[in-house]
Amino acid sequence: MTTYDLIIIGGGPAGITAGIYAARQKLNILLITKDFGGQIARKAVAIENYPGFEAISGLGLIQKFEKHLRKFTLLNSRKANLTGQVDIERDSVTKVKKTGKDFLVLTKSKNQLQGKAVIVASGADPRPLEVPGEKKFIGRGVSYCVTCDGPLFDDKIVAVIGGGNAGFEAAVALSSWAKKIYILEAAPKVGADETNQAKAKKTKKVEVITSAFLKRIQGDKFVNSLVYQDKKTGKSFTLPVEGVFVEIGSQPATSFIKGLADFNDRDEIVINPKTGETKTPGLFAAGDADNVPFKQIVIAAGEGAKAAISAYNYLQKLK
Amino acid sequence: MTTYDLIIIGGGPAGITAGIYAARQKLNILLITKDFGGQIARKAVAIENYPGFEAISGLGLIQKFEKHLRKFTLLNSRKANLTGQVDIERDSVTKVKKTGKDFLVLTKSKNQLQGKAVIVASGADPRPLEVPGEKKFIGRGVSYCVTCDGPLFDDKIVAVIGGGNAGFEAAVALSSWAKKIYILEAAPKVGADETNQAKAKKTKKVEVITSAFLKRIQGDKFVNSLVYQDKKTGKSFTLPVEGVFVEIGSQPATSFIKGLADFNDRDEIVINPKTGETKTPGLFAAGDADNVPFKQIVIAAGEGAKAAISAYNYLQKLK
Repeated sequence: MTTYDLIIIGGGPAGITAGIYAARQKLNILLITKDFGGQIARKAVAIENYPGFEAISGLGLIQKFEKHLRKFTLLNSRKANLTGQVDIERDSVTKVKKTGKDFLVLTKSKNQLQGKAVIVASGADPRPLEVPGEKKFIGRGVSYCVTCDGPLFDDKIVAVIGGGNAGFEAAVALSSWAKKIYILEAAPKVGADETNQAKAKKTKKVEVITSAFLKRIQGDKFVNSLVYQDKKTGKSFTLPVEGVFVEIGSQPATSFIKGLADFNDRDEIVINPKTGETKTPGLFAAGDADNVPFKQIVIAAGEGAKAAISAYNYLQKLK
Repeated sequence: MTTYDLIIIGGGPAGITAGIYAARQKLNILLITKDFGGQIARKAVAIENYPGFEAISGLGLIQKFEKHLRKFTLLNSRKANLTGQVDIERDSVTKVKKTGKDFLVLTKSKNQLQGKAVIVASGADPRPLEVPGEKKFIGRGVSYCVTCDGPLFDDKIVAVIGGGNAGFEAAVALSSWAKKIYILEAAPKVGADETNQAKAKKTKKVEVITSAFLKRIQGDKFVNSLVYQDKKTGKSFTLPVEGVFVEIGSQPATSFIKGLADFNDRDEIVINPKTGETKTPGLFAAGDADNVPFKQIVIAAGEGAKAAISAYNYLQKLK
């Protein structure tokens, strides 16, 4: 079995940047990912906050990232006499184990791969609502990212689904643009803390609806309304909104390294944010899978670079 | 006097990214910088590790960054109906003071500017050698960044100036490409720790020359040699090298916030690396001026985004 210097799990901004940095350090790298782009690839609206590109589609940006990484794949790196080499496997990781000094990475396709160091950059997915209309209107009114998409809803009426801190923070942020924001919470009481509730109130734009069970999102080309059921009375209501922001938590896929890292209460991997180190020497994390609070493309990319430099330093010490 | 929501000090990747993020959050921003680009603008070789651009000149990248930021300057933002506004002042900051809740920023041109929050992204400069030939050959053999330029010296003979840990780490990193690396140290003994010395020895490519006082760097179109004087004997020697890597420390310009932040022994601003916060509420730092160990464009940009989001959160709490 080949023992790679470094196995990178994930093909989003963090994983790709880690790959570029590690390849330039002449490491032999395996990058395992189901697909390229992570959450970017699912973004239907333009990305306007990755420095260097004033506005670029998610697909456009990730194609540039992937092409940048592929400069270091075997054939290309031989041709161009570049240092380092990146192998790419399209697969999902099911388990990472420590075996002596090395790591053993098991995949869905029953592959077993060995590496001296591992970077987990497997990202996180916003937890979906799973109601009719949600998938249909992604990028056409349904959004999972206020920072990314909020400016599109200038002077519009929108709803935030989820009455926790994230939902209230989203509503306050949206108040810079939207003229009216409904917060829908399925429970009889919202979960957000007083401070966040007070802030939302102060905007004079936020209306909270509790015991509201979302039934569907509807529209024509774009979202024009949602339907919810009042759980106390059983009655259904139609709310005219042009935007639906989903804030019911995210799902980082990190269980495959259970035992090797610590996690916070959101299943995010606890790292040293200066270096990307986890509690297991040789195991690093970067991007949305870790516990850095802000989830942004350029932040994830920066963390990917940190993790790769740290992995390189770790491998130097092993020698 | 206008009170800005946010004053950003510095126009490199960290400051520009902070500006883009803060403008999208509808803050009124003043960005103060002597020039745009920071260390990037001085890079003569292509940048190949900023994800999305396989190879771009320093000037090319910084022009894209600056153009991205200028989308939010007054006239443009009015025209495009964009949120937030960035004013730009070409100036140097001499002092930041806390006055009540606000910050007062004093500049070289005797301007006094007031802001509710401040991000310090003033970068750091590698300490120059100040010998003849150094300036002339920047980008043509003289480099201040092994990570950036190391790969250009495949199979070549190079020198590292500086026998501290940074110098030895540079030499070990260079051993992936260069066939021979001299380390020149002006003192009778090197300052690097044993581990770093051992690692350099292990490469079998590194030769250390102590008591070596660098006199000049010379060449034709590119560096072809350097001249040093042996301080013990007074004799001068010419060393044929194609690369000279300067590793005698860096100079972050952070004294203007003395008293408001803590600093490490390299004058770097101590931050919470998850958020960019300093010990003074409302004062944030990002990029090479802070104590995150790795100095890279994409890492600085990521930190700029973190600092801007944190500044926004801070301002929300003030309300």
